[in-house]
Amino acid sequence: MLSDAIKTYQQRVDQVLRQHLNNLDDAAPILKAAMTHGALLGGKRIRPFLVYSVGQMFNVPLSTLDNLAAAVECIHAYSLIHDDLPAMDDDALRRGQPTVHIAFDEASAILAGDALQTLAFDIISEPIQGLSASQQLAIVKSLAKASGYQGMCGGQAIDLSSTNTRIDLARLTELHNKKTGALISCAVEMALIAANAPTQEFNALMGYAHKVGLAFQVQDDILDIIASTEELGKPQGSDEESNKSTFPKLLGLEGAKKTSQQLVSDALSELEILPYNSQLIADFARYIIERRI
Amino acid sequence: MLSDAIKTYQQRVDQVLRQHLNNLDDAAPILKAAMTHGALLGGKRIRPFLVYSVGQMFNVPLSTLDNLAAAVECIHAYSLIHDDLPAMDDDALRRGQPTVHIAFDEASAILAGDALQTLAFDIISEPIQGLSASQQLAIVKSLAKASGYQGMCGGQAIDLSSTNTRIDLARLTELHNKKTGALISCAVEMALIAANAPTQEFNALMGYAHKVGLAFQVQDDILDIIASTEELGKPQGSDEESNKSTFPKLLGLEGAKKTSQQLVSDALSELEILPYNSQLIADFARYIIERRI
Repeated sequence: MLSDAIKTYQQRVDQVLRQHLNNLDDAAPILKAAMTHGALLGGKRIRPFLVYSVGQMFNVPLSTLDNLAAAVECIHAYSLIHDDLPAMDDDALRRGQPTVHIAFDEASAILAGDALQTLAFDIISEPIQGLSASQQLAIVKSLAKASGYQGMCGGQAIDLSSTNTRIDLARLTELHNKKTGALISCAVEMALIAANAPTQEFNALMGYAHKVGLAFQVQDDILDIIASTEELGKPQGSDEESNKSTFPKLLGLEGAKKTSQQLVSDALSELEILPYNSQLIADFARYIIERRI
Repeated sequence: MLSDAIKTYQQRVDQVLRQHLNNLDDAAPILKAAMTHGALLGGKRIRPFLVYSVGQMFNVPLSTLDNLAAAVECIHAYSLIHDDLPAMDDDALRRGQPTVHIAFDEASAILAGDALQTLAFDIISEPIQGLSASQQLAIVKSLAKASGYQGMCGGQAIDLSSTNTRIDLARLTELHNKKTGALISCAVEMALIAANAPTQEFNALMGYAHKVGLAFQVQDDILDIIASTEELGKPQGSDEESNKSTFPKLLGLEGAKKTSQQLVSDALSELEILPYNSQLIADFARYIIERRI
């Protein structure tokens, strides 16, 4: 059920992304190819999954959610392209495939990231059936807040400045709430704005998103230790090697596992007040800590 | 008169930018400093000038225009930071000062550019007195179109792929219409959207913007040949050295001068139908080809 939904929404958002990229003219073919490589490298598409599944809980049509799902994934894809650059994490592999600066070159990777960020704002500002201008503007605002200094970009900056430095749990949590959590929360928020969700339900689902986002990162740190390179698509133990602070380093492996379980349990509690069938996103929260990749 | 207005609007937009940057929290101090360095490095602020002067022609309050002017400058600033990177144009100096990756480091420069792009969309999606949500959404759309693959980013990609290659006048024109012209036109367009300008006047001013934008680039190419390093704040003849196609190379120096004069003359013709005092932006068009820096 969950795996079917993940797959369905993954294919759907890939199709939407592919169409937006195909629609670009051929004036800059290398840039277009680099953007396409970066945006369609695969991946679980968990942010689009959240847009679609939360939106659907409120009966927002999938077609209304398409550009929101694609936009949040454009932001995620751009961040991966830039994070992989030699000046940043210097990764040659992503999801088992060459990263954009390896498959193309550094300049193209910088530009592809830049243009994918812009594409996100482009596709959420075009007319979307079923949304008012003020809903769309609020969605733009949500995506900008989650992506910029206050969110993802700021998180990556904290991450870079924390490498080779011992940081405490509060700072590590802030780092991941911004670097990963902000965009995951934004995926849920965009769907809630599209749904005109009542305040109480809005807050409950944002609470869910916040906890799931952090659990996701704690589990990533755990998997970096326990999973094999083949399953991860990146070298196992790469956090250890790059001397990054992680939850298992600060809490121990068992402590990190307990933390992620508690976060998921808290996320599930948030769903209790909802007068909807929240089975799918509840299963998703559990999957976060059960997944092996 | 023109120089007074340029200076006034320059100081005004710098103040707006400084305030937005100061308002950021201190969670990522290096990133904040790098963004501030890149955004407040000086410069003529011609895009904000166009936002303010066109908006004022239609009596749009300056306070309504502030975030539009600051946003277009954030995009311009981000593009300069990324263009200066070693993988791109590899420039150590900009406006006589160290570029962001020299003053900080490459990773901070990449992130500062990324976050300044996001900041642009952030500040045009916050509530702006005097604008409806649909006006603001149209402004977001205009900025996204001008900045992304169809505009500035695409232009930079064409520029990179054209280095060491002989390209014809049509391709060089396309390159600059995208790389520089799109954002200049967007500055005018944002003001026109804010003014709810009537179609005929809208089209005339977009025609003006298009011609002024191209004239600006032709003049830049001319200045690269005739001006001294001190005046430009970057090494004189740097286009020649980096083997880039320029208008003087394709048209000769005199041919390029004639082209820029014709473009400005055409831009001035566009202003004739306007039932407003367009003295200031007419002077600005003339200044484009008279300037030495």
